[in-house]
Amino acid sequence: MPPDHSSNDIHMVELIRRKREGEALTASELADLIAAYTRGDVPDYQMAAWLMAVVWRGMTADETSALTLAMADSGERLAVRDYISPVADKHSTGGVGDKLTLIAAPLVAACGLPVAKMTGRGLGHTGGTVDKLEAIPGMRTDLSRQEALDVLRAHGLALAAQSAELAPADGKLYALRDVTATVDSIPLIAASIMSKKLAVGPTHLLLDVKVGAGAFMKTIEDARELARLMVDAGAAAGIRTVALLTAMDEPLGNAVGNALELTEAIETLQGNGPTDVTDLALHEAATLLAMAGIVKDEAEGRQRAQEAIVDGRALAKLAEVVAAQGGDATVIMAPAKLPQAAWVEHVESPQSGYLTAIHAEQVGKVAGLLGAGRRRKGDAIDPAVGLLLRAKVGDQVAQGDPLVEVHARSQAEADAVRDALLAAYRWSDQPPAPHPLLLERIEG
Amino acid sequence: MPPDHSSNDIHMVELIRRKREGEALTASELADLIAAYTRGDVPDYQMAAWLMAVVWRGMTADETSALTLAMADSGERLAVRDYISPVADKHSTGGVGDKLTLIAAPLVAACGLPVAKMTGRGLGHTGGTVDKLEAIPGMRTDLSRQEALDVLRAHGLALAAQSAELAPADGKLYALRDVTATVDSIPLIAASIMSKKLAVGPTHLLLDVKVGAGAFMKTIEDARELARLMVDAGAAAGIRTVALLTAMDEPLGNAVGNALELTEAIETLQGNGPTDVTDLALHEAATLLAMAGIVKDEAEGRQRAQEAIVDGRALAKLAEVVAAQGGDATVIMAPAKLPQAAWVEHVESPQSGYLTAIHAEQVGKVAGLLGAGRRRKGDAIDPAVGLLLRAKVGDQVAQGDPLVEVHARSQAEADAVRDALLAAYRWSDQPPAPHPLLLERIEG
Repeated sequence: MPPDHSSNDIHMVELIRRKREGEALTASELADLIAAYTRGDVPDYQMAAWLMAVVWRGMTADETSALTLAMADSGERLAVRDYISPVADKHSTGGVGDKLTLIAAPLVAACGLPVAKMTGRGLGHTGGTVDKLEAIPGMRTDLSRQEALDVLRAHGLALAAQSAELAPADGKLYALRDVTATVDSIPLIAASIMSKKLAVGPTHLLLDVKVGAGAFMKTIEDARELARLMVDAGAAAGIRTVALLTAMDEPLGNAVGNALELTEAIETLQGNGPTDVTDLALHEAATLLAMAGIVKDEAEGRQRAQEAIVDGRALAKLAEVVAAQGGDATVIMAPAKLPQAAWVEHVESPQSGYLTAIHAEQVGKVAGLLGAGRRRKGDAIDPAVGLLLRAKVGDQVAQGDPLVEVHARSQAEADAVRDALLAAYRWSDQPPAPHPLLLERIEG
Repeated sequence: MPPDHSSNDIHMVELIRRKREGEALTASELADLIAAYTRGDVPDYQMAAWLMAVVWRGMTADETSALTLAMADSGERLAVRDYISPVADKHSTGGVGDKLTLIAAPLVAACGLPVAKMTGRGLGHTGGTVDKLEAIPGMRTDLSRQEALDVLRAHGLALAAQSAELAPADGKLYALRDVTATVDSIPLIAASIMSKKLAVGPTHLLLDVKVGAGAFMKTIEDARELARLMVDAGAAAGIRTVALLTAMDEPLGNAVGNALELTEAIETLQGNGPTDVTDLALHEAATLLAMAGIVKDEAEGRQRAQEAIVDGRALAKLAEVVAAQGGDATVIMAPAKLPQAAWVEHVESPQSGYLTAIHAEQVGKVAGLLGAGRRRKGDAIDPAVGLLLRAKVGDQVAQGDPLVEVHARSQAEADAVRDALLAAYRWSDQPPAPHPLLLERIEG
C-alpha cells in the first residue's frame, strides 16, 4: 500500500488535485515539486498522477517556464556562457532525414559564433546527431564537462552527447512519462527540451520545430504552441531564442540513415547538398549569426555562411572538431570511408506520374526496420543501413525509374521492406502545389 | 528509474494511452488489469496514471460493471447467497447523522428477510455503522467468514466489519486514489462500493445514495449517475438492486455522533424516533421486503415493518444479534448505559425565526472536531461525543431557544466549537419551502 506523503513538506495530493481541477501552480510550487521528485521525496505514483493531470489540463506559459527552470536546476549546469560568450545552440524537435545540425553548427562556428551542441541519442526510426557522428571511426561524444568546455574554447564548436548529470529531473521524468502514456503533452515536451538547453546555458538558441506527418507535432497549431512555450521559457532564462517552424511531410534531403545522413551533411558543406537541406542550413546559420549580432542582418549572414561553404572553412571546422574529439577526420574529406551496407538495391517506381507525397514517418519506419534506429534506450544501431531517395515530392517519374536506393544488411532485408517503402508514395497526373519548407518564425 | 512494464502480459502503457484518449476498455482488459495490479505486476505509478485518465475521461456503464466484477474477484468471496437465499444488503453512500442501517437492517430481518450487513469503518466526520455498534461494550464486529455466516444463519442478521480479504483490489486502489487525488470519480466510487457488495453476494441490494451539501454527491445529476452505474453493476452480477436518492442537506435525524446515533436508532426501533428517520427506515424496509417478494407490495411491507416496531420484534432482533456477537444486549434496552460525554451544554439560537438551513457537512465537521470521527485509518474515535439537534429545518425558534446539545469531553472543547456550529445555521422570517427526503428511485 503506498504511503501517504501528504504530511511531507510538499503537499503533493493538493498539487495533484489543483492541477486536476485545471488550476495553475506557482513557480515556487513547481520548483519544490521537481526538487522533491529529484530527491526521491515524491514517489513515482504521485508524479504519474500529476503528469496525467498535466496532459489533461495543460500548463500556462508561466508554469511551463517555471517547470523548465526547476528541471534545469535539478543537477549540474554546464553554463557555457560563463566561459565563452556569445555562444549558440541549435535544436531540432526531430524529423526523418534531419541532419541539419551537422551542417548548421560547423557553418555558424566557421563564421565566428561558437556553438555548444549537447545532444541526446535518438529514440526513434533513425539515430540522433550523436549517433550520426558515431558512424565516424574513433569519434567520442561522451565528453566530460571539462572536455566539452576545452573543445569548445579551442575550436568554437563542441558536439557532445549530453550527460545524465545535465537536468537529471528530465531523465527521471521522461522515463516515467514513457511508461505512463504521458509523453504527449506540449508543455511537458517544451519543458523537457528547454530544461537541457537551460542547463547547457547558451546565449542564443535556435529551435527548429518540425511540423507534419513525419514530425511529433502533426499540426501547425500544436507546433506553434510548442514553439511559443519554448521561446518563452528561453526568454525567461535570459536566452535569446528563436523558433522556426519547418515542414516535415516528406523526408528532409535524400538520405535517411546514420552514415548516409552524415555523408549528405558533408556533401552539403562541400556545396553539393540537396536544395532543401542547403537552403534550410543557410537560413538557420544566417538566423543565428544575425541573432548574435555577428552580422548586421540575415542577408549578410546567409552570404557569410555561403562563403564558408565555398572556401571550405565550414567543412574544415567539422573535420577539426572530429579530430579534437578523437575521430578519424579523413572520413570528413572522404566519406566513402564510412561504414557501407552489404547490400544496395533500387526500388523502382511502379507507375508514372508526379510524386505528390513521400510519407516521412513511413520512410522513417522502413529505415528503422533496416536497423538504422533504436526502439529502446541501449539498443544498438547499424550506422551503414538506410535509404537514399532518388526522387522527391514534385518530381516527375516514369514507371521503372529508381525511387529509392535501399542500403541493407542483406538482399532479404532489402526485399522485406519493399512494400512498406512503396506504401509511403503517392503519384498523380498533376504536379502537386508548391510546399514551402519554412513555415513560420516565432520569437520572444 | 521506473522499469518499463510494456513487455509484460498486460500492455499497461497501451491501456493507459487508450483511456487517456477516451476509449472504453473491454471487460477482459479490465479483468487482466485488476488481476495484474492485485498481484503486484502493475506498479502503482502506472495505475496512478490510469486512474487519473479515468477521472478525466470517465467510464461507460459496461466498463464500470466489468471493473466492479474484476475487483470483486480479486480476493475471497463471502457469497452469502450460496448459504441462505434470499438475503439482503443495504448500503448508504454516507451522510451526516445517517444511522439508517442500524434501524432498517433489524427491521427487515425481523420481517423474515435475512440481512448480511458487511460494512467498512467510517472515514469522515463521524464513524461508520461498525463504529456506532462498537459503542456497545463487548460488541465484536471483526467476525471471521465462518462466524459471520453462522450468525447470519442463526439469527437472520449479521453486522460485521468487512475484512481486508474481501475485494482486496479495492483496498489497494483506494489507498492509491487517496494519495493521488483520484478519489473524485463517479465510476471509481461506484466500482469501489459495488465490488464489496458483489464479494458479499446478497440476492437483493438497496442503495441509499445521498445528495446534497452534506453528501459526497453534491448534485442530483451526479447522484443519478452514481446510482445508475451501481444499479447496472449489481444487475450485471445477478443482484437485484434498487437505489434511492435521498436528500442530505441537513443532518438526518437529530443525533450526530456514535453512541448518540445508536441511541437514536434504538429509540426509532422503539417507535420514538424522529419523523425523518422513522419514515425513511420504514420506506427502506418496505422497499427491500417488496423487492424480495416477502410482501406483495411496498404498502404491505411498510405495514409489516411498522408492526415489527410496535410489537418490539425489530428491537429484539437487534438485541439478539448484539448478544450473538458478544455485545452487552442490555444496552439495547437501556441505551443510557452507552458511553456518556463528560460535558453537555446547549448552544442557543442567537436570533428568532424559521430555520432555513442546517449545513450538514459543517455539522459533521463540528462532530469531527469533538472527536466523533477519524481523519486517517487507524485513528481512535470517541463514541460518547457528538451533537443532538433540538430544532430542524422548518422549525420556528425564538432567540435563546436551545438549537443543539453539545456532547463534549470538556467545557473547553464544547465552547471551542460554538462558532463553527452556529455557522451551519440560517434563519429567515419566512418558513422554507418543504424539502422532501426521498428524491428518486433508480432500478434496473
